[in-house]
Amino acid sequence: MTDLVWIAVVSIFTAGLTVSFGALGPALGEGRAAAAALNAIAQQPDSASALSRTLFVSLAMIESTAIYCFVVAMIVLFANPFWDTILQATTAAAG
Amino acid sequence: MTDLVWIAVVSIFTAGLTVSFGALGPALGEGRAAAAALNAIAQQPDSASALSRTLFVSLAMIESTAIYCFVVAMIVLFANPFWDTILQATTAAAG
Amino acid sequence: MTDLVWIAVVSIFTAGLTVSFGALGPALGEGRAAAAALNAIAQQPDSASALSRTLFVSLAMIESTAIYCFVVAMIVLFANPFWDTILQATTAAAG
Amino acid sequence: MTDLVWIAVVSIFTAGLTVSFGALGPALGEGRAAAAALNAIAQQPDSASALSRTLFVSLAMIESTAIYCFVVAMIVLFANPFWDTILQATTAAAG
Amino acid sequence: MTDLVWIAVVSIFTAGLTVSFGALGPALGEGRAAAAALNAIAQQPDSASALSRTLFVSLAMIESTAIYCFVVAMIVLFANPFWDTILQATTAAAG
Amino acid sequence: MTDLVWIAVVSIFTAGLTVSFGALGPALGEGRAAAAALNAIAQQPDSASALSRTLFVSLAMIESTAIYCFVVAMIVLFANPFWDTILQATTAAAG
Amino acid sequence: MTDLVWIAVVSIFTAGLTVSFGALGPALGEGRAAAAALNAIAQQPDSASALSRTLFVSLAMIESTAIYCFVVAMIVLFANPFWDTILQATTAAAG
Amino acid sequence: MTDLVWIAVVSIFTAGLTVSFGALGPALGEGRAAAAALNAIAQQPDSASALSRTLFVSLAMIESTAIYCFVVAMIVLFANPFWDTILQATTAAAG
Amino acid sequence: MTDLVWIAVVSIFTAGLTVSFGALGPALGEGRAAAAALNAIAQQPDSASALSRTLFVSLAMIESTAIYCFVVAMIVLFANPFWDTILQATTAAAG
Amino acid sequence: MTDLVWIAVVSIFTAGLTVSFGALGPALGEGRAAAAALNAIAQQPDSASALSRTLFVSLAMIESTAIYCFVVAMIVLFANPFWDTILQATTAAAG
Amino acid sequence: MTDLVWIAVVSIFTAGLTVSFGALGPALGEGRAAAAALNAIAQQPDSASALSRTLFVSLAMIESTAIYCFVVAMIVLFANPFWDTILQATTAAAG
Amino acid sequence: MTDLVWIAVVSIFTAGLTVSFGALGPALGEGRAAAAALNAIAQQPDSASALSRTLFVSLAMIESTAIYCFVVAMIVLFANPFWDTILQATTAAAG
Amino acid sequence: MTDLVWIAVVSIFTAGLTVSFGALGPALGEGRAAAAALNAIAQQPDSASALSRTLFVSLAMIESTAIYCFVVAMIVLFANPFWDTILQATTAAAG
Amino acid sequence: MTDLVWIAVVSIFTAGLTVSFGALGPALGEGRAAAAALNAIAQQPDSASALSRTLFVSLAMIESTAIYCFVVAMIVLFANPFWDTILQATTAAAG
Repeated sequence: MTDLVWIAVVSIFTAGLTVSFGALGPALGEGRAAAAALNAIAQQPDSASALSRTLFVSLAMIESTAIYCFVVAMIVLFANPFWDTILQATTAAAG
Repeated sequence: MTDLVWIAVVSIFTAGLTVSFGALGPALGEGRAAAAALNAIAQQPDSASALSRTLFVSLAMIESTAIYCFVVAMIVLFANPFWDTILQATTAAAG
Repeated sequence: MTDLVWIAVVSIFTAGLTVSFGALGPALGEGRAAAAALNAIAQQPDSASALSRTLFVSLAMIESTAIYCFVVAMIVLFANPFWDTILQATTAAAG
Repeated sequence: MTDLVWIAVVSIFTAGLTVSFGALGPALGEGRAAAAALNAIAQQPDSASALSRTLFVSLAMIESTAIYCFVVAMIVLFANPFWDTILQATTAAAG
Repeated sequence: MTDLVWIAVVSIFTAGLTVSFGALGPALGEGRAAAAALNAIAQQPDSASALSRTLFVSLAMIESTAIYCFVVAMIVLFANPFWDTILQATTAAAG
Repeated sequence: MTDLVWIAVVSIFTAGLTVSFGALGPALGEGRAAAAALNAIAQQPDSASALSRTLFVSLAMIESTAIYCFVVAMIVLFANPFWDTILQATTAAAG
Repeated sequence: MTDLVWIAVVSIFTAGLTVSFGALGPALGEGRAAAAALNAIAQQPDSASALSRTLFVSLAMIESTAIYCFVVAMIVLFANPFWDTILQATTAAAG
Repeated sequence: MTDLVWIAVVSIFTAGLTVSFGALGPALGEGRAAAAALNAIAQQPDSASALSRTLFVSLAMIESTAIYCFVVAMIVLFANPFWDTILQATTAAAG
Repeated sequence: MTDLVWIAVVSIFTAGLTVSFGALGPALGEGRAAAAALNAIAQQPDSASALSRTLFVSLAMIESTAIYCFVVAMIVLFANPFWDTILQATTAAAG
Repeated sequence: MTDLVWIAVVSIFTAGLTVSFGALGPALGEGRAAAAALNAIAQQPDSASALSRTLFVSLAMIESTAIYCFVVAMIVLFANPFWDTILQATTAAAG
Repeated sequence: MTDLVWIAVVSIFTAGLTVSFGALGPALGEGRAAAAALNAIAQQPDSASALSRTLFVSLAMIESTAIYCFVVAMIVLFANPFWDTILQATTAAAG
Repeated sequence: MTDLVWIAVVSIFTAGLTVSFGALGPALGEGRAAAAALNAIAQQPDSASALSRTLFVSLAMIESTAIYCFVVAMIVLFANPFWDTILQATTAAAG
Repeated sequence: MTDLVWIAVVSIFTAGLTVSFGALGPALGEGRAAAAALNAIAQQPDSASALSRTLFVSLAMIESTAIYCFVVAMIVLFANPFWDTILQATTAAAG
Repeated sequence: MTDLVWIAVVSIFTAGLTVSFGALGPALGEGRAAAAALNAIAQQPDSASALSRTLFVSLAMIESTAIYCFVVAMIVLFANPFWDTILQATTAAAG
């Protein structure tokens, strides 16, 4: 297996693992926050707007960790610095 | 095993792993949010529309992490950048 | 083991793993949502229609993650892009 | 070990794993939904028919994920596309 | 190890694994449903018949996932399609 | 290691694993059902006979999954179809 | 390592594993049932005899799964059919 | 490593594993039963004798699973049938 | 590695594993029983002596499983029957 | 596989693992904090501003651990000190 | 690696594992017992001395399992019977 | 793989593992503390300042364990004493 | 790898594992005990001194298991009896 | 790989593992203690100083286990006795 293939294989696997494992925590955390928000609105309908605002800020914070994972997966798939370096080296060697 | 086959094998496995593992968190999180919404509507039927709206926004946020996984799986299966590069190289070498 | 067999073996295993692991989260999540709906209807029978509607939307959202898994498993079994490419290459080489 | 045997071995193992692992989530989810339905009927006997209907729809939804697994296991055992392709190739080579 | 033995070994192990792992979820789910039914009958003895009916339908649904596993284990042990194919091939080769 | 020994080794291990792992779920599920029955009888002594009947039906359903495991373990130990086939083949070859 | 030793080694390990792993579920399940019985007697001392009877039936049912494991372990240690067959074969060959 | 040593090594390891793993469930189950008994006596001191009797019967049932494990460990260490058979064979061969 | 060393290595490891793993369950079970006893005494100080007696019997039962483990570990370290047999054989061979 | 490729492979995998595993804790912790904040606002709407302030400080603290992970992943991908050192050494050797 | 080194390596690792793993259960169990004692004293300050006495007896029982582990670790490190035997044999052989 | 590369590979992996695993506990612990603080402020708004102060001290204590991890990761990446020693040795040998 | 290095490697790893794994239980147990003490003081401020005393005794008992681990780690690092014996032997052989 | 590199590699990995795994328990334990303190202050503001004092003592006790881990990691990185011994030996041999 050439060098390029090793990097490709690990990059593909890492991208999938990162984004799928990284979905676990945020999804559970957002589910909990949303559940609390729904209970809170049912209990205090007059504060619905304040609760919604707090919920959205919290969801954004939690979602950020999922987005870190998505960003890293995209970097690994489409802007992989190691792949580029090795690809140039290989091309140069073969050129 | 040629290089192409290694990438194919890892891509297939990663696609399946990503989408199945990535379904765990969102499904549990959405189940929790939906359960809370149903309790909340039963407790405060007058706020049903506000609760539904909050629920749908939350479900969309949570679903997004599952969709990241689905997108990565589709990229890995049908638009795999490493596969394309290696395939061209192999074809060129054999051409 | 020829290349084709490696891909076949991994595809079969991935299809089974994807669909069985992908059933865990949605089944638990739907069970939770359904349980909450049943409690809610018992508590507030007058809102049964609103609760049913909310339940069905939620079940559909949760089921979607299971369906992603089923779709990926079917793609891997019956429309596997890597299998097709390698099969053609093998047939061409042998033809 | 010939190619055919590898595919057979993996198919048998995958079929068993898929159907047994895929039984875990649905069984737990259905148990939870049924438990909630029974509590709800005890609490509100007048709504028994509405509750039963909701329960059956929910059980059907949850059972669907178990059925996906059973279907994939049956496909892998009795309509395995990879097995057929390789079997024909082997027979042709030996014919 | 001949081909036949590999298939036999994997089939035996798969049958045991399938039926034992597949007993985990249904047994827990049925335990939960039965526990809820018993509590419900104690709370509302007048609805005992409706509760029993609901319980039996639920137990049947949950048991179905255990039966899928038992069926697959029996198929693997006594009607294994791969075993039959390879056995015929081996006998033919030796005949 | 001859073929017969491989099958014997796997059969012994599978029998033990099946019956011990298959005891986990039913024992926990029956414990839960029995606990609920005892609480229910304490709460509603007048319904003791109805509760006992429901409990015994439930225990039988749950025990069935443990019995599937015991049956498979016994088949694997004493009526193993693969062992018989290979044993005849070996005896015939040696005869 | 001769064939006999392989079977002996696997049988010893399987016997221990079966009986120790098979003790986990029943012990927890019986603990739960006993705890419920004790609470129930404390709550409703007048029904102590009915509760005891229910408890003993339940304990017997749960203990049965532990006994399956013990039986299989004893069979594997002292009445192992594979050991006997291979031992005769070995003795015959050496005789 | 001679045959005898393999059996000795596996027997030692199995004895330790059996007795330590087999202590987990009974200890937890007995702890739960004892805790329930203590609560029950505090709640209903007049039934202390009935509660103690029930507790001791339950503890004996639960302890039985731990004793199965201890018995198997002792058999494996001091009355191992496989060790005896192989030891005689080895001694006979060397005699 | 000579035979004696293999047995020594496995015996040391087994002794440590047995006693440490075997401490988990009893310690948790005793903690639970003791906690229940303390709550019970606080709730019903007049029954302190009956509660203490019940607690000590329970602790002794639970501790017994830890002592089984300690006994097996000591046997394995200081009265290992396999070690003695092999040691004599080795000494005799070398003598 | 050359030295550079080993470092590349490990760096890619580490980056993905770090950011995905590092998302688990913060997402769950933030979900819990947000849920508590929503409940608190519903219970005490007059203190909404104090609660929001406390929530945001807490979210920032929790998010910091996720950011540590993201920073380390970025360092490993784009400013890897080991990669730079080895790359210079390799280039110098080849230059 | 000489025999002595194998025993030394396994002894060091076992000592650490035993004492660290053996700390888990007792620490949790003692924490639970202590928590219950503190709650009980707060609830019934008049029984503080009886509660303290019960607590100390319980802590001693629980601590005993940790001490078994510590003792085994010390034996393995400083009074290892296998090490002594092998060391003498090695010294005698080299002497 | 040269010595330098081994150290580089292990250092990169350790840095990522340390900081990501080390984020789990602190994030969950801080989430719990923050949740308790928010509930406490909602319950006792007059003590908000005392509660905030206690919260911040606690968060700092908990964060300290995450910072230990970050510090060790940074040392391993940028001030690795082993890397420096080996690098000098290698350079000296090559110089 | 020489003998000394094997012992060094295992000692370093064991020391780290012992002290980190051994911190898990005591930290959780102490956290539980401290939490109970704080609740108890809030509920019964008049008994603060008795509660503190009980807490400190309990913390000391729990901490003792962590200290066992620390002591073993220190012995393994700085007073390792096996290292000393082997080091002397090696030095003597080389001397 | 030379001896020095093995020790370096294991030391780096151990340092990271120790400090990250060792952060799990203390962080969770401190989070629990802090949460209890915040609830207690909210419930009994008059005892805030006594509660704070108890909290700080408890946090210090819990933190101590994290500090043991940090100390061991630092010793392993910067004052590793085995590294020093081997380094001197290597230098002496090369000198």
